Amino acid sequence: MCQAAEHTIHGAHHHFGWDRSIPPVMTVAPGTTLEFECIDASGGQLTPDSTVADVPGLDFGKINPVTGPIFVDGAQPGDALKVTIHEYKPSGFGWTANIPGFGLLADQFPDPALHIWSYDKVSMAPAAYGPGGRVPLKPFAGTIGLAPAEPGLHSVVPPRRMGGNMDIRDLAAGTELYLPVEVAGALFSIGDTHAAQGDGEVCGTAIESPMHTVLTLDIVRGADLAMPRFTTPGPVSRHLDEKGYEVTTGIGEDLMEGARTALSQMVELLAARHGMTPVEAYMLCSVCGDLRISEIVDQPNWAVSFYFPRIVLD
Amino acid sequence: MCQAAEHTIHGAHHHFGWDRSIPPVMTVAPGTTLEFECIDASGGQLTPDSTVADVPGLDFGKINPVTGPIFVDGAQPGDALKVTIHEYKPSGFGWTANIPGFGLLADQFPDPALHIWSYDKVSMAPAAYGPGGRVPLKPFAGTIGLAPAEPGLHSVVPPRRMGGNMDIRDLAAGTELYLPVEVAGALFSIGDTHAAQGDGEVCGTAIESPMHTVLTLDIVRGADLAMPRFTTPGPVSRHLDEKGYEVTTGIGEDLMEGARTALSQMVELLAARHGMTPVEAYMLCSVCGDLRISEIVDQPNWAVSFYFPRIVLD
Repeated sequence: MCQAAEHTIHGAHHHFGWDRSIPPVMTVAPGTTLEFECIDASGGQLTPDSTVADVPGLDFGKINPVTGPIFVDGAQPGDALKVTIHEYKPSGFGWTANIPGFGLLADQFPDPALHIWSYDKVSMAPAAYGPGGRVPLKPFAGTIGLAPAEPGLHSVVPPRRMGGNMDIRDLAAGTELYLPVEVAGALFSIGDTHAAQGDGEVCGTAIESPMHTVLTLDIVRGADLAMPRFTTPGPVSRHLDEKGYEVTTGIGEDLMEGARTALSQMVELLAARHGMTPVEAYMLCSVCGDLRISEIVDQPNWAVSFYFPRIVLD
Repeated sequence: MCQAAEHTIHGAHHHFGWDRSIPPVMTVAPGTTLEFECIDASGGQLTPDSTVADVPGLDFGKINPVTGPIFVDGAQPGDALKVTIHEYKPSGFGWTANIPGFGLLADQFPDPALHIWSYDKVSMAPAAYGPGGRVPLKPFAGTIGLAPAEPGLHSVVPPRRMGGNMDIRDLAAGTELYLPVEVAGALFSIGDTHAAQGDGEVCGTAIESPMHTVLTLDIVRGADLAMPRFTTPGPVSRHLDEKGYEVTTGIGEDLMEGARTALSQMVELLAARHGMTPVEAYMLCSVCGDLRISEIVDQPNWAVSFYFPRIVLD
């Protein structure tokens, strides 16, 4: 956690989408440690003073800026870029929104919603949720990726083989991430930092929060990875598992429908039991609840489960 | 864990598949605690002396017997049956098989394979895996369910709205499970006990192990559940998360393909790193590795991750 960065890449050096022709901010030797200033996923459009009225007017051309790219000297297609994540330096401000047309239950939640978070960036104590509950925090970057080989501009929204907007909640401090390199120099960028998120990021947003991150970039020659992989140094759920879980299930022939069914029932359960509106429960599920595949072999029906940590509302 | 059973339902009282016309073994009042003797998922066809040669000859008509059914007095369609699981009493014997045509990577693993487990049923210490590693144990019943309303015999293999072969690894001691009642008396049965399994049960079998279980059956009137749900009293992964995870990912437009990609890469990684054959790694993944949906909103690409607990092979 105390690794010193050799350079800081400021947020002004950001780009929208992935494109191998974007000139690198800096060229570094393998093994270099850098600090990145990451802008929030709204690109600064949402602030502590924002209200729900600001959500429909969001300019999607400015969504999900990533800081970079960094050219890692000697990285070649077929190598892996090893990213050792040392530290996140959270800002204390965050937001979670239901953005119309986006999210696992977009059809059920057509209206915009916004929650502004204020958390203690020093103690990192669980963050109070206005409608009820306290959410344990575990910062990570939702978007960590490299430029694709295919020329042209590629949307930042979908993750790809080279990473990108993977939104994997366990890419926390201490993690080693390996990404497949497709272009010379790898062209690494990072952004979309989150103070907390559950597996699935079900409403489409997490606790979106600007922060700095410190990491080391290195090369694994000829790793020939098909997809990203990573190693966590320890447990990944102990910040929220202590009191167990409420779990709902979706059983049927389609994993996507199963996920929707499991989540819909959890939203209903939380709303009924804790006096929240459904959209408040939906956004809470997104920042702390986990989608798991319980069973994927008992044909033709699979079981997807949604795990809500009881510590949040106990 | 010390709840005393009022009756024991012996393994001789088992049935194959779900059918509302199967006569109940016993009628009990709500709140009754029962002990069930559960036969293993092979119906006793595999024993500590079995070899891989016994796998192709398995009689599928005898697969997955469940002990029951129990008629719970007063249970009606629209109610939920509340199942409070007090205890599992493991036997010390188990098996894991790759059964041709069954499992998430059935196309890649066409040949039968079998591993016989012997574990300490008193200490419940992690069980040694012949090809390498030690698997932490957490017993549960793979199949817990009720009779469906629709007449006739229904295969035991797929889970359904009323539960059944859900293979949810967290239905461990201390859990409260709620199942939708579709017929008078609920007609509860249980079986397919496992000494350990990961989320997904990816090769199609767990550590299949005969054992007894003690539980209380109760009624929640008019619960009107769409699907099973449950509550865990505490953490669900601490038996295996201490040293963190190796994680592989599958990123793309289809959750099933993503799951297959993530798992294939983990099999490859474990086989290369620990000198196992691919099928040995595949079966090990099934008994301790977890499939999670990391991201399901960044259209059109979703991220499925396979988490392998490092404690098993460290």
